[in-house]
Amino acid sequence: MSECIFCKIVNNEVKSFKIYEDEEVLAFLDTNPTSDGQLLVIPKKHFEDIFVTPNDVLNRISQVCKKMAILCRDKLGATGVNILNASGKDAQQSVFHLHFHVVPRFKNDGLDLWLHGKSKSLDKVKEIQQKLLS
Amino acid sequence: MSECIFCKIVNNEVKSFKIYEDEEVLAFLDTNPTSDGQLLVIPKKHFEDIFVTPNDVLNRISQVCKKMAILCRDKLGATGVNILNASGKDAQQSVFHLHFHVVPRFKNDGLDLWLHGKSKSLDKVKEIQQKLLS
Repeated sequence: MSECIFCKIVNNEVKSFKIYEDEEVLAFLDTNPTSDGQLLVIPKKHFEDIFVTPNDVLNRISQVCKKMAILCRDKLGATGVNILNASGKDAQQSVFHLHFHVVPRFKNDGLDLWLHGKSKSLDKVKEIQQKLLS
Repeated sequence: MSECIFCKIVNNEVKSFKIYEDEEVLAFLDTNPTSDGQLLVIPKKHFEDIFVTPNDVLNRISQVCKKMAILCRDKLGATGVNILNASGKDAQQSVFHLHFHVVPRFKNDGLDLWLHGKSKSLDKVKEIQQKLLS
C-alpha cells in the first residue's frame, strides 16, 4: 500500500490539512475543491472501495461525514451539504483508497450535483427489479 | 409527516419497486434514474437530512448502501457505484426525508458525477482549516 497517496497522508509522509482524526478515521481538506471547505473522509486502514469495506468501518466513516457536515454548517455557514462516494474506476474513482467527499453547499453557489434522471417506463423498472431480486 | 412521499412509500400508501426492507431501512428503485438500477436507500422513520439523523440510523443506511452496491454489481453487472446524499435545499435536496442514492455505473456510461474541483492556494486552504478548527 506504500504507493497509495491517502496511506501516505495517514502516515504523515505527505502533508495534509487535517480537520478530524481518531484511531480509525481521518478527515482532511481537499486542495482541489469544488466548494470552500470540501473534505475527504477516509478510513486509516486501506480499503479500496465500498464493496470491500467492513461494516464497522463504514459506520465510523458515516458518523464522521455527519460530524464534518455539522462543522461546515456551524463554522463556515454552509446551508447544505452533499456526501459523495465513487467506488470503481467506472464510477470515476481516482484514488483507490475508500473516500467520501463532504461538499459544503451555499445558496446560489452555482454547483450542480443534481442527478439528472429521466423517467423510465414502469415495465422497464419492474424488469430491473426482477433482475435485482432474482 | 403524512405529506412526505417517502413516508407514504414506507407505509405502502404509494407503490414503489422495493428491493430491500428491514425494520429500519427501505431500498427501492428510482423511477427517474440516471442509470438503470439506481436506488434510493431511506430510513423508515422520518428524518429530514444527515444533520438530524441519529448515528445508529446512519450506520444502518450505510450498510444497506453497501449491500445495494454489491447487488447492482452481482445482478446487473455494474462495474462501479456512486453513493450520493443531498442534505438541505441549497444542496439540491428535493425530498426532505433523508435518502442516499445508489447509482450503478458501467464502462463508458456517459454519466459525469466527477467533482470538477479547482486547485486552491495553500494559504486559502489553511485559512479554511483555521475556521473549521476554531
